[in-house]
Amino acid sequence: MRSAAPPIPEGFAIPPGLDTPCLVVDLDRAEANARRLGQGAAERGVVLRPHIKTHKSVALARLQLEAGAAGIAVGTLGEAEVMAAGGIDDIFIGYPIWAEGPKAERLRALHTRTPLVVGVDSVAGARLLAAAVAGAVTPLRVLVEIDSGARRTGVTTPEAAAAVARQARDAGLEVIGVFTHGGHGYAAPEARVGAAADEVASLGAAADALRSEGFAVERISAGSTPTGVLAAAGQVNEIRPGTYLLGDRQQVVLEAIPPDSIALIVAATVVSTSVPGQVVLDAGAKTLTKDRAAFLEGFGSMPAYPDVVIERLFDYHAAVAIPSGAEAPRLGEVVAIVPNHVCPAVEQFDDFVVSRGGEFLDRWRVDARGRSR
Amino acid sequence: MRSAAPPIPEGFAIPPGLDTPCLVVDLDRAEANARRLGQGAAERGVVLRPHIKTHKSVALARLQLEAGAAGIAVGTLGEAEVMAAGGIDDIFIGYPIWAEGPKAERLRALHTRTPLVVGVDSVAGARLLAAAVAGAVTPLRVLVEIDSGARRTGVTTPEAAAAVARQARDAGLEVIGVFTHGGHGYAAPEARVGAAADEVASLGAAADALRSEGFAVERISAGSTPTGVLAAAGQVNEIRPGTYLLGDRQQVVLEAIPPDSIALIVAATVVSTSVPGQVVLDAGAKTLTKDRAAFLEGFGSMPAYPDVVIERLFDYHAAVAIPSGAEAPRLGEVVAIVPNHVCPAVEQFDDFVVSRGGEFLDRWRVDARGRSR
Repeated sequence: MRSAAPPIPEGFAIPPGLDTPCLVVDLDRAEANARRLGQGAAERGVVLRPHIKTHKSVALARLQLEAGAAGIAVGTLGEAEVMAAGGIDDIFIGYPIWAEGPKAERLRALHTRTPLVVGVDSVAGARLLAAAVAGAVTPLRVLVEIDSGARRTGVTTPEAAAAVARQARDAGLEVIGVFTHGGHGYAAPEARVGAAADEVASLGAAADALRSEGFAVERISAGSTPTGVLAAAGQVNEIRPGTYLLGDRQQVVLEAIPPDSIALIVAATVVSTSVPGQVVLDAGAKTLTKDRAAFLEGFGSMPAYPDVVIERLFDYHAAVAIPSGAEAPRLGEVVAIVPNHVCPAVEQFDDFVVSRGGEFLDRWRVDARGRSR
Repeated sequence: MRSAAPPIPEGFAIPPGLDTPCLVVDLDRAEANARRLGQGAAERGVVLRPHIKTHKSVALARLQLEAGAAGIAVGTLGEAEVMAAGGIDDIFIGYPIWAEGPKAERLRALHTRTPLVVGVDSVAGARLLAAAVAGAVTPLRVLVEIDSGARRTGVTTPEAAAAVARQARDAGLEVIGVFTHGGHGYAAPEARVGAAADEVASLGAAADALRSEGFAVERISAGSTPTGVLAAAGQVNEIRPGTYLLGDRQQVVLEAIPPDSIALIVAATVVSTSVPGQVVLDAGAKTLTKDRAAFLEGFGSMPAYPDVVIERLFDYHAAVAIPSGAEAPRLGEVVAIVPNHVCPAVEQFDDFVVSRGGEFLDRWRVDARGRSR
C-alpha cells in the first residue's frame, strides 16, 4: 500500500504574514485532541501519560495535564531536565538510560530534585542506575521494559523480566512495574489491533512473572498512538500515546487519529517554478525531514493540492511534482504541509506559531529541542 | 547499487567520557580537507566559496577562509544573518529568496549592514528583491540561477537566463553573473563527471547569453562536493562545494572524497542488547536522520564493525542488525558512526565536540542551527 491521499485538515487556516518555513499549531485542535484522549483513558479506567517527545513544549505538556493526563513520558534525560525545569514533576523516562560518566551525574542531579521513574531492560543498566543515585533520599523507581513485538528494546520473555527486576531490586532500585511500546502497530492500519493485543498480553505475562517474585507491580504501561486506547485492556493501567496531540499524515493513514484532528502544519512558500512540471517549496529535509513510512508516497501532503507529490527533498528545497492537469500553487503562495511524521519535523524548529482558527496568538518555544541526550 | 561498505576513518579516535549522542569533529582532518580544496581551487585558478550549510559554524567557516576560501555560500537568509553577525562579510545566498513580508525586512536590514549577493530564478522574485532593498546605498547584487540537470531550481534555457537578468536589471538589481548546482552528481559515482560537464556547459551558455545583453558576467559559479574541482573548467571561475569539509558516508561511496578525510563522526552508546541479533544505539532519527541515498544500505556506517547494518531508526534508538558470526559492540560501548549525510545530522545538534587525534579540545556551537528561514 502506498498512499498519496493526504489528510484534510479542514478549516485549518494559516495566519497571514508568516516568515516561512515555520510550524503552525492550531490550539483549538490540540485542545480537542488532548480532551479526546483524556476522556478515552478515563472511560477505560487507565492513566494517560502522554509522551512529550512529539512536541517538546512545556506549555503543550501543561495543556495535556489540564486535560486529564496524570504525568508525562519522555525519551531522554535531556527532555526530563527541561520538563522538570518547567515545573512538571511526574516524569517517566521510557528509555534504558546508560548511566555512566556525565549522564550518571545528570541523572543523580535531576532525581535529587525531581524523583524520577526510569526504564530498564538489562541487569548491567540497572546496576549503573543504582550506582548513579546511590545515597539519594528517594529511591529511584524503575519499570522493566518488555518487548511486545516491535523488536527494539525490552526483554523478550517473562522470565527475563523477572530476572532483571530481581537484580534491579538487589542493586537498590525500586521496581514498580513494567512497560512496553508496541511500535509494530506502525506497520499498517491493520497492524494496530494486533499490536495492542500484543502489548496487553506481553505486559500481563511480565506482570504475573514479577508478582510471583513478590513485586507489587503497581504500574503496567502500554504505549503508542496507533495502539492508543486499544491497549487499555487486561492488566494495563496506563497508556503513553504522544503523536495524537498534534497528529501527522502517517497517523491519519494508519487510521490512528481522525483526519480533522491534525493540529500542526508546516507553512511553506513556493519559491521557484522554473523547472516545468513542478513547484519548489522552501521546506526541505531540514524542515520536513526524510521520514517516510513505506506506505506513504512523498515527504508530506498538501491538503489544498491533493494530487501533487512532494517528491524530492534537498536541505532547503522541496521539489513538488505536479501531475499533468492538476492544480498547483502559484509562485509566492504560502501553502500548508502535513508532515509524514511530526516528531522529527518539530525537532527542526526553535518555536511554534500558535494560532486559533487562522488567527495568530503567540510563539511558543520547542523547549526541549535538541535534547537527544 | 547498494553498499554496506563503510568508509574507514582510520585512526579517528573518540575522546573518552563523552555524553552521547554527540558530534565529534577531528580538527586535523577538517583542516586538511580545507587545505586540499583551497589548493585544488588555486591550482585551477578558480575561487573557492564553500557552502557552510554543512557545518553552520562561524569557527569552521573561518577555518575555510584561512585555508584559501574567498567567501562563503549559504542556503538561507538566517544562515547569512548568523555568519554576518560572526564577522564574515563576503556572503552569497544561493537560494531564490522570496522577499515578501518579514523576509523582505530581514533582507533589507542585513544587506544594509553587509552587502549581499543573492540568487534569483524568476522575474517576480527579482522584483521582490529589488523592492526589499529599494533606496539602499549599495545595490543588491544577484546571480541568475541556471538548472544544469538537477531539475530543482534555476532557469532551464540561456534565453530565460537573459530574460531574468534583463528584468532584474530593469528593476534595479545589479546582475553580476550566473550560478548552478549540479545536484544530479549525487546519483551515483559515475554521475559526477557528467554532472560537472553539465554545470560547465550550462553556465557557459548562460554567461554567453547574458554577455550578448551587455552584462559583464564577472561571476560564473558551479557547485557541489561530488562535482568539486571537476567543474573548474570552461568559463567557470568559482566553485561552491560544502560537504567536503566534514565528509560523510555518501560522499565516500560516491568517490567524491577520500575515505580517510571523514572529519566528523557521531558518537553513540550501545544501550540495549535485549533483542537477539541486534544491538540498540542511542543515536536515532533525531540524531542521524533518515537521510539515505538509494545506493546506501542502512542509516550510517560503523567503521569498527563493518558487517553490521543500522537497519531501523526510531526517534532516539537505532536498531543495528548483527549478521550471524559478525563482531558486535558490547552493551555500554561507545561507537563511532559515519552519518549517511552530514548536513541534516549536524542540524540536530547545538554543538560539536572538537578534538585532535582523540584528544578533547573544546565545544563549538552549531551557530546557525535551526536557521532554515
